[in-house]
Amino acid sequence: MTDRYSRDDLKALALDMLTKGGLAAEKAEVVAELLTRTDELGVTTHGLSMVPYYLPEIASGGMSSEGELEVVTDKGATMVWDGNYLPGHWIMTQALETCMERAGSHGIAALAIRRSHHIGCLSTLTRIAAERGFVCMISTSDPSGRWVAPYGGTEPTLTPNPWAVGYPAGDHPVLIDTCASITTVSKVREYINSGRQFDHPWMLDGEGNATTDPTVVNADPRGTILPVGGMDHGHKGYAMGLTVEMLSQALSGHGRAEEVTRWGGNVFVQVMDPEAFAGLDPFKAQVDALNAACRANRPAPGFDQVRIPGDRAAAMVERSRTEGIALPDEVWTRVRASAEELGVALPEPL
Amino acid sequence: MTDRYSRDDLKALALDMLTKGGLAAEKAEVVAELLTRTDELGVTTHGLSMVPYYLPEIASGGMSSEGELEVVTDKGATMVWDGNYLPGHWIMTQALETCMERAGSHGIAALAIRRSHHIGCLSTLTRIAAERGFVCMISTSDPSGRWVAPYGGTEPTLTPNPWAVGYPAGDHPVLIDTCASITTVSKVREYINSGRQFDHPWMLDGEGNATTDPTVVNADPRGTILPVGGMDHGHKGYAMGLTVEMLSQALSGHGRAEEVTRWGGNVFVQVMDPEAFAGLDPFKAQVDALNAACRANRPAPGFDQVRIPGDRAAAMVERSRTEGIALPDEVWTRVRASAEELGVALPEPL
Repeated sequence: MTDRYSRDDLKALALDMLTKGGLAAEKAEVVAELLTRTDELGVTTHGLSMVPYYLPEIASGGMSSEGELEVVTDKGATMVWDGNYLPGHWIMTQALETCMERAGSHGIAALAIRRSHHIGCLSTLTRIAAERGFVCMISTSDPSGRWVAPYGGTEPTLTPNPWAVGYPAGDHPVLIDTCASITTVSKVREYINSGRQFDHPWMLDGEGNATTDPTVVNADPRGTILPVGGMDHGHKGYAMGLTVEMLSQALSGHGRAEEVTRWGGNVFVQVMDPEAFAGLDPFKAQVDALNAACRANRPAPGFDQVRIPGDRAAAMVERSRTEGIALPDEVWTRVRASAEELGVALPEPL
Repeated sequence: MTDRYSRDDLKALALDMLTKGGLAAEKAEVVAELLTRTDELGVTTHGLSMVPYYLPEIASGGMSSEGELEVVTDKGATMVWDGNYLPGHWIMTQALETCMERAGSHGIAALAIRRSHHIGCLSTLTRIAAERGFVCMISTSDPSGRWVAPYGGTEPTLTPNPWAVGYPAGDHPVLIDTCASITTVSKVREYINSGRQFDHPWMLDGEGNATTDPTVVNADPRGTILPVGGMDHGHKGYAMGLTVEMLSQALSGHGRAEEVTRWGGNVFVQVMDPEAFAGLDPFKAQVDALNAACRANRPAPGFDQVRIPGDRAAAMVERSRTEGIALPDEVWTRVRASAEELGVALPEPL
């Protein structure tokens, strides 16, 4: 049986490691809280698992360990911030609070952020606003990253360009969290590290041939990750990718035009208040009707039931609350190594 | 050589047919103008081609031929309108003017519309705002329609859920116009009518097996159109479909909860002013840098070049301006039949 841990112990571990690693305490507090919430959601790739990745970034200055973000533009319902490469969880917590407050007064608010550091699991963020009755959309790109070719092309040009939408429903929030490419950079690395091939042709080699081989990203000419829709209808994923880069880079006024070489997150956040449209109760009634029709669908072969995005997260949160949080062995191996290096003791399981 | 016609003659033909068909003159004027612009863009499936479909809708009252739209909610930057099934082009023209004006003062504006009639080609609409320097996003669903199963399910539940984004660039606007399913209802009908199969498995039969056969939508149990991503990663198209229905139905407070049976368009329109973010010139600089990197890509086998959505439309508009507008024979056959029925003369080609 997998060991389970209390959320307080896991958060204390993350906080201790991040502060010992050099991150200012008030920022480490926010990062540790959101990483723990991410593990509670069951997205263990983006929870405490990130600490061993953040520590060298803090040490090298890739992630700024202290300082303030800069308000570039503030028009009330629209804003641009410069994140100065500060921790993304800390920036996004303020971004959400500000956008919710502004959506409360204007009905809608949007914020484009340049030069954030890693913002973690998007569902953890959209969930904060969705649980408070807002519609929240977040999309993010890295103007220094090139992993996806435009549809019809062969050269790495775009990032996978994640986008997420969280919104209220009768039971628990709907949490959509996806991206414009078929798979992600971290999945590609995972498959390369474990020597595996993808089950389907999710990659494009440097000559423009679809392949299941993740190692094409290390070949010359470099291969790429196929956009959503693949060889068949990849113009649809390409359209999503262009949209995400426009929202996060063009609106924030910082991106590929600067030929950025430092890894960074550009983010577009939008929050809407259903009360400023037809009302929150009618909103939930429509969402619930569609969700019920989806869940009642006769499953296709190979599926046990139709799920709404967010269903699994809601079940995981409930289980985390009652039984504690479980992390995969692979995560503990890396976290343990980092903790030992810092002289931080690991917590006892429940 | 295909005959070409002047835009004035084609618009006059559409206007004459629509008014003789019973549509109030000031509404027919707007519909005729936008249908002609759609043909100028080269989207001849959604231009004058629609008139023979609209005429019986006007006659039956499915499309309201006169009357006003109702403002349900107006909070300045957010609005809900009830379109009373009036012509979609006429509603959307007002929607865009209102949203551009509001985005001018608030930086951002969003409008959810219930019970519009058909709004036509989304690119024709987003282009209006993009040419005036705005970012414009439109998505639309029909709460009475069921064509797409949720990912993992087998029963028709969602509409194809088109979404479009138009935004300024240095040369001409980027015009993204796509949907959450691999193909559209009109393509399915076209393939059924011509007895063709799709090249790839874009459909799902009623048992949940992927197929190239469009006639599964007429079988029992009814088949469906696969979401973007298909059997492989259709959860991504499903996510887009849920998002479009949330924006257009839940925010407008009208949708599947009412068990609507009358065909109608729910629409979500959002307009943003780049000047209320980092500015229009920096916006275009970022868009142009990414577009240039895409267009400069070495083409994949089977492609002559990488295109940005909107490139073909820009070339078609230029050609329409200098040489006139060409319509496919199939469109003329149907338009001619409707025109003769109404006693309207066809124009002479240029």
